[in-house]
Amino acid sequence: MSKTTSPSPSRPSVKIAYIGGGSRNWARDLMKDLASQAGFDGEIVLYDIDHPAALKNVEIGSKIFGRPEAVSSFKVRAVKTLKACLTKADFVVISIEPGPTENRFADLIIPENYGIIQPVGDSSGPGGWLRGLRSIPLFEGFAHAIMKHCPKAWVINYTNPMTLCTATLYAAEPDIQAFGCCHEVFSTQQKLLKMAEEAFGFKDLKRDEIKVNVNGVNHFTWVTEATCRGKDLMPLVDAYARNPDNFTDATKISRSRTRKGEIYASEGMVSMDLYRRFGALGAAGERHLVEFVPWYVRNLKTLHQWGVTCTPYSLRLERSQQKDVSGNEYGQKELNPSGEEGVQQMEAILGLRELDTNVNLPNLGQSPDLPLESVVETNAAFRQGKVTPLMAKALPVGATCLVERIISVQEMTLEAALNRDLDAAIAALLCDPLVNIATDKAVEMAREMIQHISPELKSLGYKI
Amino acid sequence: MSKTTSPSPSRPSVKIAYIGGGSRNWARDLMKDLASQAGFDGEIVLYDIDHPAALKNVEIGSKIFGRPEAVSSFKVRAVKTLKACLTKADFVVISIEPGPTENRFADLIIPENYGIIQPVGDSSGPGGWLRGLRSIPLFEGFAHAIMKHCPKAWVINYTNPMTLCTATLYAAEPDIQAFGCCHEVFSTQQKLLKMAEEAFGFKDLKRDEIKVNVNGVNHFTWVTEATCRGKDLMPLVDAYARNPDNFTDATKISRSRTRKGEIYASEGMVSMDLYRRFGALGAAGERHLVEFVPWYVRNLKTLHQWGVTCTPYSLRLERSQQKDVSGNEYGQKELNPSGEEGVQQMEAILGLRELDTNVNLPNLGQSPDLPLESVVETNAAFRQGKVTPLMAKALPVGATCLVERIISVQEMTLEAALNRDLDAAIAALLCDPLVNIATDKAVEMAREMIQHISPELKSLGYKI
Amino acid sequence: MSKTTSPSPSRPSVKIAYIGGGSRNWARDLMKDLASQAGFDGEIVLYDIDHPAALKNVEIGSKIFGRPEAVSSFKVRAVKTLKACLTKADFVVISIEPGPTENRFADLIIPENYGIIQPVGDSSGPGGWLRGLRSIPLFEGFAHAIMKHCPKAWVINYTNPMTLCTATLYAAEPDIQAFGCCHEVFSTQQKLLKMAEEAFGFKDLKRDEIKVNVNGVNHFTWVTEATCRGKDLMPLVDAYARNPDNFTDATKISRSRTRKGEIYASEGMVSMDLYRRFGALGAAGERHLVEFVPWYVRNLKTLHQWGVTCTPYSLRLERSQQKDVSGNEYGQKELNPSGEEGVQQMEAILGLRELDTNVNLPNLGQSPDLPLESVVETNAAFRQGKVTPLMAKALPVGATCLVERIISVQEMTLEAALNRDLDAAIAALLCDPLVNIATDKAVEMAREMIQHISPELKSLGYKI
Amino acid sequence: MSKTTSPSPSRPSVKIAYIGGGSRNWARDLMKDLASQAGFDGEIVLYDIDHPAALKNVEIGSKIFGRPEAVSSFKVRAVKTLKACLTKADFVVISIEPGPTENRFADLIIPENYGIIQPVGDSSGPGGWLRGLRSIPLFEGFAHAIMKHCPKAWVINYTNPMTLCTATLYAAEPDIQAFGCCHEVFSTQQKLLKMAEEAFGFKDLKRDEIKVNVNGVNHFTWVTEATCRGKDLMPLVDAYARNPDNFTDATKISRSRTRKGEIYASEGMVSMDLYRRFGALGAAGERHLVEFVPWYVRNLKTLHQWGVTCTPYSLRLERSQQKDVSGNEYGQKELNPSGEEGVQQMEAILGLRELDTNVNLPNLGQSPDLPLESVVETNAAFRQGKVTPLMAKALPVGATCLVERIISVQEMTLEAALNRDLDAAIAALLCDPLVNIATDKAVEMAREMIQHISPELKSLGYKI
Repeated sequence: MSKTTSPSPSRPSVKIAYIGGGSRNWARDLMKDLASQAGFDGEIVLYDIDHPAALKNVEIGSKIFGRPEAVSSFKVRAVKTLKACLTKADFVVISIEPGPTENRFADLIIPENYGIIQPVGDSSGPGGWLRGLRSIPLFEGFAHAIMKHCPKAWVINYTNPMTLCTATLYAAEPDIQAFGCCHEVFSTQQKLLKMAEEAFGFKDLKRDEIKVNVNGVNHFTWVTEATCRGKDLMPLVDAYARNPDNFTDATKISRSRTRKGEIYASEGMVSMDLYRRFGALGAAGERHLVEFVPWYVRNLKTLHQWGVTCTPYSLRLERSQQKDVSGNEYGQKELNPSGEEGVQQMEAILGLRELDTNVNLPNLGQSPDLPLESVVETNAAFRQGKVTPLMAKALPVGATCLVERIISVQEMTLEAALNRDLDAAIAALLCDPLVNIATDKAVEMAREMIQHISPELKSLGYKI
Repeated sequence: MSKTTSPSPSRPSVKIAYIGGGSRNWARDLMKDLASQAGFDGEIVLYDIDHPAALKNVEIGSKIFGRPEAVSSFKVRAVKTLKACLTKADFVVISIEPGPTENRFADLIIPENYGIIQPVGDSSGPGGWLRGLRSIPLFEGFAHAIMKHCPKAWVINYTNPMTLCTATLYAAEPDIQAFGCCHEVFSTQQKLLKMAEEAFGFKDLKRDEIKVNVNGVNHFTWVTEATCRGKDLMPLVDAYARNPDNFTDATKISRSRTRKGEIYASEGMVSMDLYRRFGALGAAGERHLVEFVPWYVRNLKTLHQWGVTCTPYSLRLERSQQKDVSGNEYGQKELNPSGEEGVQQMEAILGLRELDTNVNLPNLGQSPDLPLESVVETNAAFRQGKVTPLMAKALPVGATCLVERIISVQEMTLEAALNRDLDAAIAALLCDPLVNIATDKAVEMAREMIQHISPELKSLGYKI
Repeated sequence: MSKTTSPSPSRPSVKIAYIGGGSRNWARDLMKDLASQAGFDGEIVLYDIDHPAALKNVEIGSKIFGRPEAVSSFKVRAVKTLKACLTKADFVVISIEPGPTENRFADLIIPENYGIIQPVGDSSGPGGWLRGLRSIPLFEGFAHAIMKHCPKAWVINYTNPMTLCTATLYAAEPDIQAFGCCHEVFSTQQKLLKMAEEAFGFKDLKRDEIKVNVNGVNHFTWVTEATCRGKDLMPLVDAYARNPDNFTDATKISRSRTRKGEIYASEGMVSMDLYRRFGALGAAGERHLVEFVPWYVRNLKTLHQWGVTCTPYSLRLERSQQKDVSGNEYGQKELNPSGEEGVQQMEAILGLRELDTNVNLPNLGQSPDLPLESVVETNAAFRQGKVTPLMAKALPVGATCLVERIISVQEMTLEAALNRDLDAAIAALLCDPLVNIATDKAVEMAREMIQHISPELKSLGYKI
Repeated sequence: MSKTTSPSPSRPSVKIAYIGGGSRNWARDLMKDLASQAGFDGEIVLYDIDHPAALKNVEIGSKIFGRPEAVSSFKVRAVKTLKACLTKADFVVISIEPGPTENRFADLIIPENYGIIQPVGDSSGPGGWLRGLRSIPLFEGFAHAIMKHCPKAWVINYTNPMTLCTATLYAAEPDIQAFGCCHEVFSTQQKLLKMAEEAFGFKDLKRDEIKVNVNGVNHFTWVTEATCRGKDLMPLVDAYARNPDNFTDATKISRSRTRKGEIYASEGMVSMDLYRRFGALGAAGERHLVEFVPWYVRNLKTLHQWGVTCTPYSLRLERSQQKDVSGNEYGQKELNPSGEEGVQQMEAILGLRELDTNVNLPNLGQSPDLPLESVVETNAAFRQGKVTPLMAKALPVGATCLVERIISVQEMTLEAALNRDLDAAIAALLCDPLVNIATDKAVEMAREMIQHISPELKSLGYKI
């Protein structure tokens, strides 16, 4: 395959529909990345149930694309209907928050009251489950609208629970062209990059020079092979994991971080512990990984020992209530790349470059030991008009076993939500590895969570 | 199929080889059942590493078959080698205890010290795991010896962990004709029998008139259909499970039972709780069922609330040290049927009758939603020279999910033990639903368990 | 399982709905079998698009059940609507002829003109294909009507193409309780019975004492194990097949049979040739077996060498035009059993007896090497309210390969007919093993066949 | 993925082992391609049972690499043992002829005498089968030797039957790193390239700009998607196939070609006929495609009508006996690229470039509707130290059905040959779609073929 595709004398012009276009982070990052990198132009149409938030982003967008260093030209506008947003779109980006931040009380605090600790609670466990119940009906609607208004568009989902949301798109509309993107594997690559630099003296390594075999489900992905410039990096991982000094009690530092609100920091012990127990490196942030297995979250003490902290509900609430920046800021800030890959993915689909990267897609066979049709995270080849999964190497049996039980729970949850069947949903929750409490308590907890957001669930079609 | 097979003017004469022939319960029960029911004659050859125990059973056997009401004639003898036991055998029965009762300290007390409660600890959880590690090498040896000395014999296994032991026979010798038998489903049938009598006024019901669809793995079997004389029994189960009065806190009664050593009694709440949560009735003793899921054994308090008690290690030890009865007793006791089905199974295989019953066999497809090749418990048709699985109805998704994770753990354990790979075995243990403690603690516990019986494990080929 | 189920003081009373109730053979045989054997009573409701034919059978039925030796009592009546026939039925029997005998011209003579020889042409090959195209829409209708008017009824299909008709019932209504019955395996059992009598001196053997492992698809079934009273019959089959004298040129006898119209007679060479080539005995009539492989029907000469003759179209037409017997005859003829098993099956489902026999059902796993969900023929256990497949032993690889290609063609045909898509149907036909002619000729043939019955196909919803 | 991998200041130096190094075509083409294109240097070690032929290629190699325009530097030498050839090799190339050309008499002329026409007879049909029987034992030996002497080498197989030879490598040594290469898909790309140039006015298109979804088995591959610079080419294929003028009787031209020995020329009608019948484009030379289905080779007349000719055995013999060119010629001929991709593949594996191309590999899931583990031809990503299959789009059901039966026959043949079981091999042959003759004739033919090369087969371990 030639490294340069045919010269493109004229730059493509595309329409990007953005569902959740009032988002403070993702929408603005995408606009910055487009402005600073895109080899194509067009328009961005923002749609959000919070229309003023979308309008605010229109203002910010005009600043961003007005920056002198902008290399692309995009018109940004906000619309009030999904139809207006989607019609004739080439790409659809979805990054929504399913309901107000107050919902997170039900996701996080109620389970905590029953003894279930969740640092994030957006993918798995009771929190991921309830978030799934309220996201799935929304994504059904998005899928139908997309197939009605722009059936040939490429759909990029950034919303969590990633697996459930992406799976819903395909369950509702099997012919949709959608994939889910997440940067968690990137940080594993960054860790490996540092190891490679230290061990081999490489300089100026870029993240995409770290080639990894990725397999699993989102936020519970694993790396079994890693190379850089032809060098095998797994022996470095192995040596690290064999050294007990790398696994010391992190209680103190965790407590200090909790006090300071440094919620993303960690020691990286969990991903390495998974490696030393199962032979594959956990390839997501520690705060995500711990939510897929029962071992690290038995109580807050254990979690802290492993160097992971919880994002307090109060902090989430506080942040959500922070005043937004003024749009002017964006007219002055530099267009730093966000580190996300959305723009490169679009370029590849437009035929402007080639890209192999990790992505969430239904398993057509690319993950040979995981159930067919379930949404898995593996590498894929992005090419003009195509996203083709690359066959992933199988995981060690232990890792497969752990991932399969997550997939089972998620498939049960998806089926239950599609049928708006809360009893079936509760049965799914009982099977979640975090739910180690007595069934009567667990059912009580589930009902309390449901009750807490019952108006929203009712409005989505659930009978309560 | 005609109800009477051809008249058999001459009764068949068979050789039954008994591995573990010193067993106080199983061997004696089998002899009593043969004496009181069998339509065939022959000899029983007992083999036990405790040869005196086998000799004792020879003595008892001669009393049993000497009883005036005995309907069959068997010569009983003990031999000192497996070869002598097996040569020319028609049936091989295996009921062994893998190592002395003191091993149970490692199975039960060490996990308890780490907070893991196990009422039985012989199938699943840390206890079932360690018991598996010491049984699997033994069963490998049995399988090879059987295929060498009596390749056409039918092998009936009664030893726990049932699934692992039976799976080992097939892993070691794929052409072996073996199946595993367990009476736990029978007690579910007895419960349903009582319901049927009450609801429909049926009288003199026999257990085998309760027709059940059985599916799952041994001790974690499930019933999804039950009929009796054409009446559907599941609505009775459903009505029972819907009545909250049937699920009251049983702490007091559990404590009382614990004091009295009534370790087999229970309220039947767990099997019914599984039904109301997942739509299939748990079909094994409560003390077994609770060991396959994390919910009921979180601590002793929860276990007692659900009406289940632990068999104390001290009691096990005491019983194992009890003086044996005198053989004479058997010359005087009536030959009450044990309730086991071994004799009927042999009769059916000999062509003397037909029998459909539940049995443990590799899944060739009979359990459509469970992994192929894993050992599952379903119904099978016993006919002359054949044991043919009957297709089982699939389980509800939740039950399938729970059973699959057990199968995964057992397959990992089997593979690890066949390779004598203790690291892989520990990885398997981590995946067991009962192991909800931090990985470092869990690994410490596993190593302590291994250490406690290390001479035995070493003698079986493990490197420690 | 006890050999005698509970005593049934009162005989059950059932309604049997008969679709195709004007049938001269099947309907009358069923009535005779019911009159001479049934342990239950009730009514038979005949429905036929040829209402007078149904009325004729009412007349005959009254004679049959009026015979002094009748052991059961059935009221027979004819109705003019499917709804009236089906409402409240306990059993539904379907034996129809899809369209007039003249259709067989398209099934048989047109292919013959293109060089494709078919002795029967009702299951496979061009004839089976076209017959399938006109049956499938009818069976879709039956399935929907059954689930509307008598969803709990048991449906017994006798119509060919057996596999396609039975598969259609399940494709249209997955919850239907249907199975397909065919007596072809019985004749294989009869052949084995004779061998067993000769070799072992058994006397008074009954067909159901020949226990066989059946696997495959209807009319292309195979036997890999056969025993009788504990004796293995396969060595007898093997010895027979190894003797070249059993495979001599049968041209003369075939020609003589053709002249005499002895169309069902054969030498049994094909079933034995399949055994010696592939290690499994072909277990259907020779005239059926040859239609599933390309070897014996290359031309009429080859067919005759193998001792098989074609049923001439003229003979079929002649028979269909024969005057019917008078009803009075049935008042005088003895009630000889037909050899079919319908009555025994009904008895078993009613709980009056137990029966293990071969039957056509969707493959839920009972045929481990054939595709799941395809309709296969294996043994099943008929019990009160249940028909449960028994796991079949896998076929040798060669036989599996041959059966799989038939299943593929049938699945393609079914899908095409369900979609009324004639292009897809023609693609399926091209893949049939009998279609060895150039694609342009084959397509021309297919179009000519379609054209010949185009009014009928149009009325069924095909676009031509 | 960055378009430029890291700069490689020093060119890699590799050892290429060549089994069949006396080959006149493939070995010389590879040397020319290396000389004219390779971004790496090293040595080529030729091994051939015809050592003088290998020596001749050493002479030619020295001329080739001595050419002034050579861009790489390779030392060429011949060795007398496989061990010397393989030890420390980085790449192993296998292009052998299994036995002398006279063997082709058995492959081609004996079947022809029984009425079975084969234009090539090297992949499928009786010819491919017998060629397989003699290749498989050789490839078993190669696999073992490779894993002994250079287990980390990449093995490139060019030998036919491609599927069977590549499958043998993996059957004998599951950990081998082997793949099979074939240029047949390239010619389909060339055809599509011309269509793209005509339809869209593209200029200077290179073959690798035609992006195709490839699926199937070697020489019976199919293309279901084709794009070029973002344009969909399938509508062009469709329009072509819908025009009956493109399917005229080619008898005359075929006869003329036969006379002139223009054996590779064809009208391209077969690949397009497959498209119009099944919806996927046959993607190999017509002379190969016709050998996988029964329709075009019913007799020579039909074959010629479809524009395909047979390569006469006499011509093959004549060519094999032609005097070789003098080595000097290679010192003077220009180093025209052969069109093969071996050098680019090696470069990609060395990390010097990236390449996505079609290749034969065991199906780990990349071909979702074909049997797992069978060797399939799909696209794969060649990257530093890795060849990773890209998920292929499924074929239409008809094409899948046709390919599956080929895979079944090949798997049976492979298994039979690995066991040196000629009876099983004959059973496999009977299932080949080309074998439409009576079984007795077919078996007679098979035995005659075997007999004709019996010394060779005996020397390979078959018992005859």
